[in-house]
Amino acid sequence: MLQTRINKLRKILEEKNLDGFLVSNFYNILYLTEFKTLTNDEREGWGLITAKNVYLFTDLRYVKSQNSKVKNTSQKLKIITSEKSLIVHLKEIIYEEKIQRLGFEGDDLKVNELQKLKEPLINVELVSLEKLIIKIRGIKDEEEIKKIKMACQIADQCLGEIVKTIKAGATEKEIAFKIEFWLKEKNQDLSFYPIVAIDKNSAIPHYDTRNGNNEKVKKNSIILIDFGAKFQDYHSDMTRMIFVGKPTDEMIDTYRTLLKAQEKTIEQLKIDSNPVSVDQFCRRVLTSPYSLIPNPYPHSTGHGVGLQIHEYPKISFTSTDVLLPNQVVTIEPGVYIEGKWGMRVEDTVLIKGNKQIEVLTKFSKEFLIISNY
Amino acid sequence: MLQTRINKLRKILEEKNLDGFLVSNFYNILYLTEFKTLTNDEREGWGLITAKNVYLFTDLRYVKSQNSKVKNTSQKLKIITSEKSLIVHLKEIIYEEKIQRLGFEGDDLKVNELQKLKEPLINVELVSLEKLIIKIRGIKDEEEIKKIKMACQIADQCLGEIVKTIKAGATEKEIAFKIEFWLKEKNQDLSFYPIVAIDKNSAIPHYDTRNGNNEKVKKNSIILIDFGAKFQDYHSDMTRMIFVGKPTDEMIDTYRTLLKAQEKTIEQLKIDSNPVSVDQFCRRVLTSPYSLIPNPYPHSTGHGVGLQIHEYPKISFTSTDVLLPNQVVTIEPGVYIEGKWGMRVEDTVLIKGNKQIEVLTKFSKEFLIISNY
Repeated sequence: MLQTRINKLRKILEEKNLDGFLVSNFYNILYLTEFKTLTNDEREGWGLITAKNVYLFTDLRYVKSQNSKVKNTSQKLKIITSEKSLIVHLKEIIYEEKIQRLGFEGDDLKVNELQKLKEPLINVELVSLEKLIIKIRGIKDEEEIKKIKMACQIADQCLGEIVKTIKAGATEKEIAFKIEFWLKEKNQDLSFYPIVAIDKNSAIPHYDTRNGNNEKVKKNSIILIDFGAKFQDYHSDMTRMIFVGKPTDEMIDTYRTLLKAQEKTIEQLKIDSNPVSVDQFCRRVLTSPYSLIPNPYPHSTGHGVGLQIHEYPKISFTSTDVLLPNQVVTIEPGVYIEGKWGMRVEDTVLIKGNKQIEVLTKFSKEFLIISNY
Repeated sequence: MLQTRINKLRKILEEKNLDGFLVSNFYNILYLTEFKTLTNDEREGWGLITAKNVYLFTDLRYVKSQNSKVKNTSQKLKIITSEKSLIVHLKEIIYEEKIQRLGFEGDDLKVNELQKLKEPLINVELVSLEKLIIKIRGIKDEEEIKKIKMACQIADQCLGEIVKTIKAGATEKEIAFKIEFWLKEKNQDLSFYPIVAIDKNSAIPHYDTRNGNNEKVKKNSIILIDFGAKFQDYHSDMTRMIFVGKPTDEMIDTYRTLLKAQEKTIEQLKIDSNPVSVDQFCRRVLTSPYSLIPNPYPHSTGHGVGLQIHEYPKISFTSTDVLLPNQVVTIEPGVYIEGKWGMRVEDTVLIKGNKQIEVLTKFSKEFLIISNY
């Protein structure tokens, strides 16, 4: 799988007349080399792809570790030390491989990092490129799809177990905590800190459960749960609504309209490769003249999911991306009535091509009503 | 407190003849404005400090939220929309405030972000600066010290409870999970994913418990636990060794030597403001002719702790930083015998000036022996 990824990148490098590409982004290094540093906050690993070789630069701590991820022997490992910096290594390779034009990740490399490369690499033309690897990452291979499917399946199971435990009196943080610990107890992980938003809070599209007012479940509450599981570095993303007791007619109508719009938009992925038109389609269905919903949601309709929870492509009306087979994206329209309540329904969906799609998050979207409160 | 921080920054801007400073870094925005976006991975907030004003740029999702952190009315809030981008806002302010030289965070801003600013802001001189705010952040104010003390206290308590539960058969991940669970159940958080390393794994300075071989506690095991708690965004960091059953004479001697070196180095912080010499001091004491320890540890002696777990100043032999009163740093020498076992002892320490220091992590460093296994 790695070789296919490298080949895709090399093809682009050739088209762009580049002799090499320096990879600084944590996730892109992971994607191309399977090497992962302890945190994505500090630069402890670098990659370099040339026509002939794949180089991995890191320090001794990662190499000596029993749990070292530096295992791939087809990669050339270069150890960064206080005497031999990344730049010294790069200079050697540039000389050996006669590199004249070297690409780098302009959307990841920092201004001062580029400055530090420029002077010692004076004889090399440094070329800033954007979205290069993230676009390749958009198209998932078989192994990646398997992992995302597993992440979705784990989230489905988790929600099933958690819903059973929700009762009047439970707070948002308690429910989020239960999700986190259900996963971690099973040696799994969260995609991101869960959004659990009850009643008025569900009307806040970007509600932050961790710093919110920690609303409690009450009789006739409406609960929004937006969460995902992570399986072997791959994410899932799903939002479901839970009703406690008896939903009002307005809630029932709104939910039905929202669900119809969400499902029709998923269908639209079969035939529409333009994310801007998919975004518009969803908003149009949601606010059609027959619907009671006046204003569209103030966020995008969806996003790619993979090694990161938000990645290429973006499904929004400012998107310049393209929808293609083997991408995995979310579709997540919402309705928010400020000060009252809100709803969102979200699935992780695989675009299969040949007018086929597969919804990977399979948890029921039927009315989920808790009557035992 | 915010005003003092802004004033410190403004003084530097004046010295550098800058009319404004664009803040892109998540933690620096939090430090200067108390505003925090949901994730530090995506650019959803920006700050701009001029001689007259403090501007905060973000989108409507953060402003409308019930849990909005945009509360400080002395800041001028500017809403980023699809029609009115950050750049459009900046152009207006640059015109209004007659800004000619605008500083930015060269160690945070990405190459393509700078490119996008350059063209529309053609009449402004953009000046790249490094480590500007992180150096200010190094000196903690009263409120920050209180929060770090609380984070240390929580970690002390947590470890006390966890140690009681450790028995033969427990795995590294189980112990790490218990630490995480103990904190989160109390609505607290981890500083970072705990390092729990047993026996051979303790000899790996950068051991990754999450991806390791999940060693079990056995009779006569040696357990390294490196973890911290986070309290209101502020971190603590501590490493302790736990012995199961009867430590060998070699272990006892090594631990005593290591502990003496760690404690003497903490004392050294009273009189030495040069991190390079503090680093050398620690290595010298550890490997003195009277000691059995041959090789020094392959990592730095310590680092600043605050809004981030690793921040300014760095205590290592390549450091160019300065140790000053009201900084909070770790001192964490180690001894690693490959394939056998390793030890590290680490405290979070407040440098007080006037030849005074305070160790903030107070958990005992006496031999911690579990005999009930």
